[in-house]
Amino acid sequence: MERLDALLKKVENKTGDFMGYPVAKDFDIEELLPFFKYPLNNLGDPFVDSTYAVNSNEIEREVIEQFADLFQAPKDNWWGYVTNGGSEGNLYSLYLAREKYPNGIVYFSNSTHYSIRKNLHVLGMQCITIRTQPNGEMDYKDLHQTIAQHRNVPVIVVANIGTTMTEAVDDVITIKSILNDLAIQQNYIHCDGALGAIINVFSGKNKIGFHLGIDSITLSGHKFIGSPIPCGIALVTKANRDRIAMSISYTGSLDTTITGSRNGHSPIILWHALHKLGDNGLKQRVDKCLITAQYAMETFAKNGIPCWKNEGAITIVIPPQPVEIQQKWQLATEEFMSHIICMPNISREQIDLLVKEITQDGSKNFPIKEKFPFL
Amino acid sequence: MERLDALLKKVENKTGDFMGYPVAKDFDIEELLPFFKYPLNNLGDPFVDSTYAVNSNEIEREVIEQFADLFQAPKDNWWGYVTNGGSEGNLYSLYLAREKYPNGIVYFSNSTHYSIRKNLHVLGMQCITIRTQPNGEMDYKDLHQTIAQHRNVPVIVVANIGTTMTEAVDDVITIKSILNDLAIQQNYIHCDGALGAIINVFSGKNKIGFHLGIDSITLSGHKFIGSPIPCGIALVTKANRDRIAMSISYTGSLDTTITGSRNGHSPIILWHALHKLGDNGLKQRVDKCLITAQYAMETFAKNGIPCWKNEGAITIVIPPQPVEIQQKWQLATEEFMSHIICMPNISREQIDLLVKEITQDGSKNFPIKEKFPFL
Repeated sequence: MERLDALLKKVENKTGDFMGYPVAKDFDIEELLPFFKYPLNNLGDPFVDSTYAVNSNEIEREVIEQFADLFQAPKDNWWGYVTNGGSEGNLYSLYLAREKYPNGIVYFSNSTHYSIRKNLHVLGMQCITIRTQPNGEMDYKDLHQTIAQHRNVPVIVVANIGTTMTEAVDDVITIKSILNDLAIQQNYIHCDGALGAIINVFSGKNKIGFHLGIDSITLSGHKFIGSPIPCGIALVTKANRDRIAMSISYTGSLDTTITGSRNGHSPIILWHALHKLGDNGLKQRVDKCLITAQYAMETFAKNGIPCWKNEGAITIVIPPQPVEIQQKWQLATEEFMSHIICMPNISREQIDLLVKEITQDGSKNFPIKEKFPFL
Repeated sequence: MERLDALLKKVENKTGDFMGYPVAKDFDIEELLPFFKYPLNNLGDPFVDSTYAVNSNEIEREVIEQFADLFQAPKDNWWGYVTNGGSEGNLYSLYLAREKYPNGIVYFSNSTHYSIRKNLHVLGMQCITIRTQPNGEMDYKDLHQTIAQHRNVPVIVVANIGTTMTEAVDDVITIKSILNDLAIQQNYIHCDGALGAIINVFSGKNKIGFHLGIDSITLSGHKFIGSPIPCGIALVTKANRDRIAMSISYTGSLDTTITGSRNGHSPIILWHALHKLGDNGLKQRVDKCLITAQYAMETFAKNGIPCWKNEGAITIVIPPQPVEIQQKWQLATEEFMSHIICMPNISREQIDLLVKEITQDGSKNFPIKEKFPFL
């Protein structure tokens, strides 16, 4: 059909260009396409088989287990499922936190993804936004002072393992020490690791994981790993998950997911990618991105374009770009910055081309220094 | 890979067999497979373009518009999006209802899908379950009496347009008349039309739609229409949707969805199916199911198997079947009944085969009459 042919061409072109979204484009699922002939549905809990047998539950369990290992989840006390993306994972984790501490206050930094606030509104949870340091990391002094004023209620902290704009990582060890200092016994730490969790495990100074005392972590599957369909992982402690288990005769399953019907294709896509890569391949993938990011930093600097990045990050912040460049390269842009994200498929040629277009456009668009506070 | 080959074979076999789930298997998306090479993501609101251009927003808008027409949504006062399935649509609609009437009580019948109660728990909404008539329809007398005791708070009613076990349709006209009788001015009616909404439009005595005074309707895309990936439609009035609009600079979009990242493939699959079928094709599809259902009823009866169905429904209720038959044909089963659903791909041969297996197994498994109240 003509309409669809035209759309396919547009999608092809637009995929070639983008550098501003944390979405891997180098996946190859050719050999998985036959699965799209069938209505795979991993109804409810992947660890409980339902009567609907057209599913990939077994594969899904292996995917979750692999991430449980990667994030050092406590033996026999973890549970999870493949979600439709990072937002659903966050909603699910915060739901668990609310069930544990119904009157808790949620603390998160100003650089947190907007979906956290949206999710908290859906869940009807109280929250306080914490100031952000210039690099996008949580201002721990502000966190300490703010929690100190509310020691009478449980504390739920959302730590960003890679913020959306600067890929800043909130330090869970520092957050834990604040909770200890204030003797907050009732606490829940959720990590939003949409893009950054996997990168952090291989490049961060403190590898994120349950050994640091977190209660849940979520990540996206279509970002660093790559998948045509947005998907993600929610990984939680089993004890917290059991609190919301609900027996449902209809599917013959205990449904502890948010979604109910869940596509069985995403788990296969993730399994396939992880199987091909292995832990070693994941590490190489991270290294490749870090090398590209280093190249981009050097190239920007050499061409007089102000640039900056967090340690261990693959996101590079540059001054806000004019609309044409934003749209062509699909650069997410906030008031004082645009960014590019050096995903595995970003090439040096693309960076060179972007630099050429930015410098051709002239430096008139660079903001005055005080508006670009990282320099 | 061997593991995946084995899974594919299992999925193929299991898809061939199932008769108990309302999932169409006759979709053909061969020509859409090239789209699975690309990370399509319809971030946020489909009616607002974001900077992430690898999307199918335009196609999605047309799909929503087609359903807005089908369900007679008020001109210039409708909005919607393609969801990951019926449950998400229900969560979204109830979220809108809560934002409109934060202290409202939600009424739904005992035959309602379990996800409604789960969603209400997530949203922290109060609810009262209404008794069910033997056919699975809401007991309107009980609804009237119960609302009469709570006239001081807004009323939110979830009407089933096809319950999961007996495909019973709650009568919105009767529900409206109860609200009028009790002079409940603050009310919201949501219709859960997962499987039944499309069937009802073509076979029901009162075609469901916004002309009856409903506020939202949701349906599944992978059920009656067919899609490998579970998906659905949430269709609401624009006025209610605008209440929760939230400006987000990150994506350059107003995100009024629950999910955020949404796959762009499901809208293409739905568009493709609707485009091929047209309204006429949809009607023929419903007619075909009704004819198969009639054949099944006659065949069951001829072979001494108690059976029953609601008027205009394609779901046939039979006594609860032994575990082997439940599992082989993937029949959803509750205490007093199993059911088969005469989806478009169910053939007379399959029905004959099922009847043969049931009768071979002997009538020992048929429950005593008083436990199968429809006869």
